[in-house]
Amino acid sequence: MQTLLLDSDDVEANAQMGAIIEAVEQAFGAFERGDTQMPAKSYIDLPQYNGDFRSMPAYLEVRGSDASSSESGSQRDADAADDWDAAGIKWVNVHPNNPAEHDLPTVLGTMIYSDPETASPLAIMDGTTLTMKRTGAAAAVATDYLAVADATSLGLVGAGVQSYTQLDAISEVRPIEEVVVSDLDDARTQRFIDAYDDEFDVRAGSISEAGHCDVLSTVTPVRNPVVTPDDVGEHTHINAIGADAEGKHELADDLLQAATIVIDDHEQCTHSGEINVPYHEGTLTDADIYGEIGELVVGANAGRAGGAGGDDESGVTGVSVFDSTGLAIQDVAAARVVYENARDRDTGTPFGLIDTEVQ
Amino acid sequence: MQTLLLDSDDVEANAQMGAIIEAVEQAFGAFERGDTQMPAKSYIDLPQYNGDFRSMPAYLEVRGSDASSSESGSQRDADAADDWDAAGIKWVNVHPNNPAEHDLPTVLGTMIYSDPETASPLAIMDGTTLTMKRTGAAAAVATDYLAVADATSLGLVGAGVQSYTQLDAISEVRPIEEVVVSDLDDARTQRFIDAYDDEFDVRAGSISEAGHCDVLSTVTPVRNPVVTPDDVGEHTHINAIGADAEGKHELADDLLQAATIVIDDHEQCTHSGEINVPYHEGTLTDADIYGEIGELVVGANAGRAGGAGGDDESGVTGVSVFDSTGLAIQDVAAARVVYENARDRDTGTPFGLIDTEVQ
Repeated sequence: MQTLLLDSDDVEANAQMGAIIEAVEQAFGAFERGDTQMPAKSYIDLPQYNGDFRSMPAYLEVRGSDASSSESGSQRDADAADDWDAAGIKWVNVHPNNPAEHDLPTVLGTMIYSDPETASPLAIMDGTTLTMKRTGAAAAVATDYLAVADATSLGLVGAGVQSYTQLDAISEVRPIEEVVVSDLDDARTQRFIDAYDDEFDVRAGSISEAGHCDVLSTVTPVRNPVVTPDDVGEHTHINAIGADAEGKHELADDLLQAATIVIDDHEQCTHSGEINVPYHEGTLTDADIYGEIGELVVGANAGRAGGAGGDDESGVTGVSVFDSTGLAIQDVAAARVVYENARDRDTGTPFGLIDTEVQ
Repeated sequence: MQTLLLDSDDVEANAQMGAIIEAVEQAFGAFERGDTQMPAKSYIDLPQYNGDFRSMPAYLEVRGSDASSSESGSQRDADAADDWDAAGIKWVNVHPNNPAEHDLPTVLGTMIYSDPETASPLAIMDGTTLTMKRTGAAAAVATDYLAVADATSLGLVGAGVQSYTQLDAISEVRPIEEVVVSDLDDARTQRFIDAYDDEFDVRAGSISEAGHCDVLSTVTPVRNPVVTPDDVGEHTHINAIGADAEGKHELADDLLQAATIVIDDHEQCTHSGEINVPYHEGTLTDADIYGEIGELVVGANAGRAGGAGGDDESGVTGVSVFDSTGLAIQDVAAARVVYENARDRDTGTPFGLIDTEVQ
């Protein structure tokens, strides 16, 4: 039995963003329908190294008929007519000392993608690149349902690695022309501008300038909110990506309280997502949460009124926020896209990891 | 960053049984001392394929001084003078239809072995071979503490893949000369005999003949016990390996009730180990459990009276049973041995899975 090894370049080359967005949207829908198995992330805490490991196993089942009934994603093919399922695990970590002390990234993920029927490890791939792709894709799904239909501007607070896939993904679901990036680090800002200068009207700006775009993605690790109600436009859709641990949040409480809040998963968001701090302080309660993104995908809850994902004028108005913590099913769904593309295009490195001669 | 890929042959070649036994013994000791992190196995159940996935993450820390204070394992080097720690995850499954329907083994494990300090994936290796090695090693540790000191005979009930590593491992801790193997499948029995005929006095026999050896290992997946009190000798030590799910057990209730029962982990053993059925029926209670294997390793509980692992005559007498379910820390400890041997001997296939250029 051969396992396909896919390194960072292979994942990059085979993670076509349109297909990843579609897969992640299907995963959110499957989650809402109860067609997923996703044991709670289990943590290994290593305070002596200022780090932790997280294991994220998942299984999901998508019915082709469900996928084709979705009316969103105007620019994307709805060609996933067949049923599919997928399983796998991401073993990932957060070691903030890595860059300064070891010249390594903070996050180093490894993804094992398995055949649910036989458990064969079909592929082992770089989980770091995969995480960035599926995180961008989640923001794109939320943006598709929650941003105004004619959104053409995207603001970014934070110009780190996650900001790139935010633009890559969101520009798949809205005709983004103008990009405003806000980061305290000028070199980091300039690198981002240089990367996208040919494709977009991209410039550095203040948080408020970024926040007055039609769509805003925040990708910073801050513990004191940096975006206030005055920093955003009347109908800005915000993807809150940065918070990934207890105590982190990027958006001011009064901004959250006034906004329509959509989450990916209640347990994860209240534990370590954008809403975790005000939720534990009681400033924000379940009554302030509009719903899960999967509810918008399956049509149980309306998206933006008049938006591409909304069928009528009765949907969400004003500022909306998507609290994205990242679900294991997103990784598995994205890994399936990468694996199938790589296999079909004969890329990657086949390796006989397990001798399958039956004794 | 390079990750060392280790296929089945690489694992086989670098899993020196003596070193694996020592590492597993240290892992049991670390568990007892509270120097491990082992989140509960999380399961994904796929009844539509008659299978399941299990994720087994773990971290352990071993202090060299602890290891050298152990007085057991007479034939093994006690050269692990240094402290060490290790982390990793095994992603494994049980798909019983695999052999008949897919010409694949029931169990297909993949192990990711990681540096705890940076989370770098140091190695990815065949977890199936590793599982057999560490399971044999666990039985050897228990045998070392619980079998009579002059044990020279080993019985095996079941001649499947696990029986091979039972003999490989147990013969490291006792001078085994005579081996009796009992299996309903004559071809399987003969394969086992052929494999060891040069090294041991090995023959086919009844369950009772196997059970009257000094040491007995049972490695069958049965749901109705096959070994009764009459089938074993007065001081036989039994390694009960086969039970790995609710409803499975190999030893009759009255055999268990009369024996000294040592377990690897209370939660796992009562959930899916040899004792799970009588424990849930109330036939066996906590009062019938002598202790965890780690308690014997750290000296909190005595091993066999007059045995190699017991310092005095006050220890265990009569029939003893080790209920082995397999702990994630065994996999991590064994993976460390395999990785370090492979690295030192320049074997395996280095692969640049994750691009670690820090952005």
